[in-house]
Amino acid sequence: MRSGILVIGNEVLEGLVLDSNSNWLERRLTALGVQMHRLVTVRDELTEIEKGLRFLIDPCDVIITSGGLGPTHDDMTLKGISRTFDRELCEDFEAAKIVRRQYNDLFERGIVDTPDYTESRKKMALIPQGSVPLDNRVGGAPGIRLGLDNCTIFCLPGVPSEMKFIFDDSVVPWIEENRDEDYEERTVEFPIRDETVFAPVIAKVMKENPRVYIKSMPKSYGTSDVLRVWVSARGKNREGMRESIDRAIREMAEESGLEPSTPDGKEE
Amino acid sequence: MRSGILVIGNEVLEGLVLDSNSNWLERRLTALGVQMHRLVTVRDELTEIEKGLRFLIDPCDVIITSGGLGPTHDDMTLKGISRTFDRELCEDFEAAKIVRRQYNDLFERGIVDTPDYTESRKKMALIPQGSVPLDNRVGGAPGIRLGLDNCTIFCLPGVPSEMKFIFDDSVVPWIEENRDEDYEERTVEFPIRDETVFAPVIAKVMKENPRVYIKSMPKSYGTSDVLRVWVSARGKNREGMRESIDRAIREMAEESGLEPSTPDGKEE
Repeated sequence: MRSGILVIGNEVLEGLVLDSNSNWLERRLTALGVQMHRLVTVRDELTEIEKGLRFLIDPCDVIITSGGLGPTHDDMTLKGISRTFDRELCEDFEAAKIVRRQYNDLFERGIVDTPDYTESRKKMALIPQGSVPLDNRVGGAPGIRLGLDNCTIFCLPGVPSEMKFIFDDSVVPWIEENRDEDYEERTVEFPIRDETVFAPVIAKVMKENPRVYIKSMPKSYGTSDVLRVWVSARGKNREGMRESIDRAIREMAEESGLEPSTPDGKEE
Repeated sequence: MRSGILVIGNEVLEGLVLDSNSNWLERRLTALGVQMHRLVTVRDELTEIEKGLRFLIDPCDVIITSGGLGPTHDDMTLKGISRTFDRELCEDFEAAKIVRRQYNDLFERGIVDTPDYTESRKKMALIPQGSVPLDNRVGGAPGIRLGLDNCTIFCLPGVPSEMKFIFDDSVVPWIEENRDEDYEERTVEFPIRDETVFAPVIAKVMKENPRVYIKSMPKSYGTSDVLRVWVSARGKNREGMRESIDRAIREMAEESGLEPSTPDGKEE
């Protein structure tokens, strides 16, 4: 299963907000056995949302959008979906129930001043025909799932806590039911500072182990005594993938004469 | 002037590396008066690099790529450029001089074990015909600049310190010579917790001030007592842009009856 992410928001594109949502989604998707294929960030404009969707839909089985589900003028993700796939925006009964419940709850907790289902709030319950609203227990806007012929689209909010809630609550169960592959990875470090010397080793071992993907991740010269190397595999047989990864690491060690170690501490 | 960023690397797409390069570039480009238009991240595959470039080239005057300039098998950005724009890869005299100088220097500082111009290192001096190598005084791989009919492409390394060096050293002077607009922005906070209530205020003020762009940036309900609002303008007259921003903020205050304040502390 291949996935694409579409991030919508001028504030992300202009660097005002660091897009940590995508990194979170990528890690989760990869760990679930989904291959992250493309990421696109576009401005809050209908034609841009449409172009981003069209760029992703061809190679991707699942697309996750983030941002643009809120009550303001520039929240136009669902309008973009509606236009791209010719699905009218209609007030959905289930979506309205979620919005009403959330604002009642926020009102009871003293966070908003009225529980009313205002025009701005109703906007968040207008979803493209044929889509399924996804519960949001953190904020006001429901997500949606829209199944098309060869692709399923999930629209999630941009506020990180809401995006994460809906992903875990609605997207993960769907992926677990529909995915077709597992994923394994390992990161090791070799005691060498010069990527140019290690490059031929990687090339040789990858050629002999077509099932694994090997990637070196250099740091600035002189800032690290080791070269971090990432080895991953994708397939249906988890045990076989683990063995392939072990073999590739062993062969890199033999080829280079260097002993690999496991990185301590966090990724940088 | 409109810009696009193309990030190349499986390790970014799979979340192993948080893409902070793009955020850095976006902030710098925006501050320089360049409008960031689209960002695309693709895998280390020639066809993907080609598709990413083609998706960006139509609306963008300048494209910055990051990643894929190094010595290993999966560093294929220049090969992708070569294929997309039909420019042969040739060993460039100036690029080779940069690579040789850098490895001599790294050798003298005891960071690499040989100063030789090996095959892996020579790969970094093969650049698309017609492109200009950009000096890299931090790492081994030069960047390049390639001018096409309606777009200029800069290819920068993925290692952040190298990317930043080449951007400041070679891209900024080019932008300063070629840009046609300035940019102004202000972020204010209104003492309101509910974006749905503020949405009509923003809509009204934006309609009356077509030269400014207003965007609210909500946090999770209940986690903040204020709503952060970002107001920006783009144009040739810096003083006029500042006045337009001031007016829009004043009108939001009048319309809502709320007093804006300047955020203290860092962006979150």
